[in-house]
Amino acid sequence: MSNRIRNKKLLKRVCSAKEAAMLIKDNMNVAASGFTPSGYPKAVPLALAEICKENKEKIKINLYTGASVGDELDGSWARADIIKKRLPYQTNESLRDHTNKGRCEFLDMHLSHVPNYVKLGFLGKIDIAIIEAVAITKEGHIIPSTSIGASPTYVKMADKVIVEINTSQPLELEGMADICIPQNPPYKRPLPIVLPNDRIGTDYIPCGLDKIAAIVITDIEDNVRSLSPIDETSEKISENLINFLKKEVELGRLTNELLPLQSGVGSVANAVLAGLGKSEFENLVCYTEVIQDSMLDLIDTNKVLFASGTAITPSIEGLKKFKENIKTYRDRIILRPQEISNHPEIIRRLGVIAMNTAIEADIYGNVNSTNIMGSRMMNGIGGSGDFTRNAYLSIFTTSSTAKNGEISSIVPMVSHHDHTEHDVMVIITEQGVADLRGLSPKERAEKIINNCAHPDFKPMLLDYFSRAKEKSYGHTPHILGEALSWHERFMEKGTMIVE
Amino acid sequence: MSNRIRNKKLLKRVCSAKEAAMLIKDNMNVAASGFTPSGYPKAVPLALAEICKENKEKIKINLYTGASVGDELDGSWARADIIKKRLPYQTNESLRDHTNKGRCEFLDMHLSHVPNYVKLGFLGKIDIAIIEAVAITKEGHIIPSTSIGASPTYVKMADKVIVEINTSQPLELEGMADICIPQNPPYKRPLPIVLPNDRIGTDYIPCGLDKIAAIVITDIEDNVRSLSPIDETSEKISENLINFLKKEVELGRLTNELLPLQSGVGSVANAVLAGLGKSEFENLVCYTEVIQDSMLDLIDTNKVLFASGTAITPSIEGLKKFKENIKTYRDRIILRPQEISNHPEIIRRLGVIAMNTAIEADIYGNVNSTNIMGSRMMNGIGGSGDFTRNAYLSIFTTSSTAKNGEISSIVPMVSHHDHTEHDVMVIITEQGVADLRGLSPKERAEKIINNCAHPDFKPMLLDYFSRAKEKSYGHTPHILGEALSWHERFMEKGTMIVE
Repeated sequence: MSNRIRNKKLLKRVCSAKEAAMLIKDNMNVAASGFTPSGYPKAVPLALAEICKENKEKIKINLYTGASVGDELDGSWARADIIKKRLPYQTNESLRDHTNKGRCEFLDMHLSHVPNYVKLGFLGKIDIAIIEAVAITKEGHIIPSTSIGASPTYVKMADKVIVEINTSQPLELEGMADICIPQNPPYKRPLPIVLPNDRIGTDYIPCGLDKIAAIVITDIEDNVRSLSPIDETSEKISENLINFLKKEVELGRLTNELLPLQSGVGSVANAVLAGLGKSEFENLVCYTEVIQDSMLDLIDTNKVLFASGTAITPSIEGLKKFKENIKTYRDRIILRPQEISNHPEIIRRLGVIAMNTAIEADIYGNVNSTNIMGSRMMNGIGGSGDFTRNAYLSIFTTSSTAKNGEISSIVPMVSHHDHTEHDVMVIITEQGVADLRGLSPKERAEKIINNCAHPDFKPMLLDYFSRAKEKSYGHTPHILGEALSWHERFMEKGTMIVE
Repeated sequence: MSNRIRNKKLLKRVCSAKEAAMLIKDNMNVAASGFTPSGYPKAVPLALAEICKENKEKIKINLYTGASVGDELDGSWARADIIKKRLPYQTNESLRDHTNKGRCEFLDMHLSHVPNYVKLGFLGKIDIAIIEAVAITKEGHIIPSTSIGASPTYVKMADKVIVEINTSQPLELEGMADICIPQNPPYKRPLPIVLPNDRIGTDYIPCGLDKIAAIVITDIEDNVRSLSPIDETSEKISENLINFLKKEVELGRLTNELLPLQSGVGSVANAVLAGLGKSEFENLVCYTEVIQDSMLDLIDTNKVLFASGTAITPSIEGLKKFKENIKTYRDRIILRPQEISNHPEIIRRLGVIAMNTAIEADIYGNVNSTNIMGSRMMNGIGGSGDFTRNAYLSIFTTSSTAKNGEISSIVPMVSHHDHTEHDVMVIITEQGVADLRGLSPKERAEKIINNCAHPDFKPMLLDYFSRAKEKSYGHTPHILGEALSWHERFMEKGTMIVE
């Protein structure tokens, strides 16, 4: 354990998960490491859920993390009814159900904003931070595991820190992190990153011996999932996207090395990265949030020279490969705090090509990434806004239909707006590509309907658009009484199609 | 004229406005200087409109500017039916009418995006740039007049440049500009601005002798307007905003020097700045777009030490004062390209307090800044998105009602989304302040309805919210069939009030 806990004084603070969990009291703001199901604390959260089940008196806390975390935290706490407020992102079934039943409050935030808000005091004080680590240095600094997220800020701002030393996380992760915590204004300075592989900080999270209240040893692995195979629709979307990029190269607006890539997660993202592996593009670099299997594959084949992110989340199979080759990957990957990985300054400077997934898009180019049928929270906006707004190219992909063709992903008006017409440059479905740059709202509508909508819904969309142009003002034609009727119809009849 | 045109070779290119206007051909992309009714070309546009009236054959062009411009350009060209497509912003009655009748296409863009898009080739090539100047240097570089806007990029990217030397613009403006044109990725570098008064460029727009195709001498003044007096509602909004800032100081989140201020234009903005003049805040600095009378007043009284913007647009009376004291103001004001004045990197770094006006806001904190009743373009998003998204504090102000109380500015769902729930931190009406930081959608709804809505509409909003909570999912409760019904009612009956 001496390579995991490098200061003997700290050995006294090693305790059971249950003892550490007892430090968490009712009404606290608890911050945890974790970004995707990687690098989040597991033993202490499970212990707290256990305690709450046994005890009669309920405790309610606000839970802040980097982004989503695994079921050991979000799931077990939602089921134990511990969470009063949650931010900034989640993907857990139990928690999502809880949120949509109105049993806990969820605050859906731009991920780059979170550490900033905490440092500025906008989200109250952090009572306790629980951080997963591979080791603690002699000075009491924390070597993070598979994600950085908002941990550096949480540690800095917390009254007390509980460290979970996870022995399933390889010690060789040390050196992959690049930790820098920007000052608050008026003391902020330029961030000197001009290439995705520039390092500007330390490889540990500054903490110090005094702040560490408890240390828990665990070996519960990151709760990563197996990859689902790439389906035909995702493959077609990927093909359309890659052809679009090729055309940009032909037009002289990009070179074969493209520009730093950001890619959301999920099956379309996987298909796109797999497609890039087979393309003529070369010497690629990534400036993204999450590094998944397909990106590791691209590193293996030297298609991708370097990747910067805030979390590594391979599949079960990918995790094995990652651990076996970790020393090679460590030279090709940097993990940064989410304030840096998603920073508008860097994204605008590098000229990132942002590729994210939409739930639905409307005929004028607005995108819904979060609320199904306007009310039901899916996961959250995540980093899609951070990247989209500041990207060199902002691309949204979606299958043109959902629910076996009953839902059109292209609608007259989105039922919730996360990315506005001002920010969305390109929409891609399996049907085709709508390049919206330089187009007025009416020109965008024609492009989106004709190129991206499913044939089953195209006539209905054209009909709406043509009647709207007759009935309303000429800039963004809408029939307000009908704009959201497709969603209403789906909720009433289970289909957007007019019978 | 030798101090205005400093190279004798250029004298040969001096011609009449009509001769210069003849350079503009059908189907061209024409870019013009101008940001608010200041620093835009006047003589050549008027001459072109004249030519088009006389000639039988129509010409149609795309007009790109910094932001809005005066009637000599937007108005005369709209009335002459010359404009095919217009971007990125406008405030002209004739052009607005044209747009809303669908007779020209208007592209409503974030102002920081415009020069970037042009340099990247996303908006096609610039055939001709028409730039108002106070002088041309020996080397053929342009000393801009009262606005910078997108002119540096337009000059750089244009095939030909027409310069309007405006002798009504004082030569003493020379030295006020700080021109820097960031590279395209992957060659962008950090912008070394850490204080609003940092200079990073030249005081002229690089052009060169060869590019100047024609020079026109004119003395038509900037078409600025008189100020309307501050009304009671604006005064109350200003009071609420200043009290909110005082509370932030009490909470230790700001000092009495605040942070750099950005302020939109209009009567509320004027009232707020006037209010700051009477407040205990001191040593203020501004990092904003447009510098108006009230900011000059604050400079006069040393309340504001320094202001950075992209345009100076005083009233008729203010313009007189500005010209008389221009040498003093020149030490206290920098005019920058809109790519820099509105740059996400600088705004986030400086920690700007952004104060902008909303047309309407909804109970979840989404803001409409552009489309009245979802379809009718007012002016455009302007820089409000650039500042809001990256601000230390993003504040939106609006009167709680419009049209003599028939319209509620707080609605169940905005009819157009320009700023989403993820970006809006504070909403202020004459009724009160809703501080939305750290609140979930449902918590925001309660704050906004109770603190900001007009008493005439509060019960209706509470009723909608409570029924939505019963009927829909619990995250962002909405009744989609009713969400936009208030706007429909207004369009049918002239009031949002249920009879």
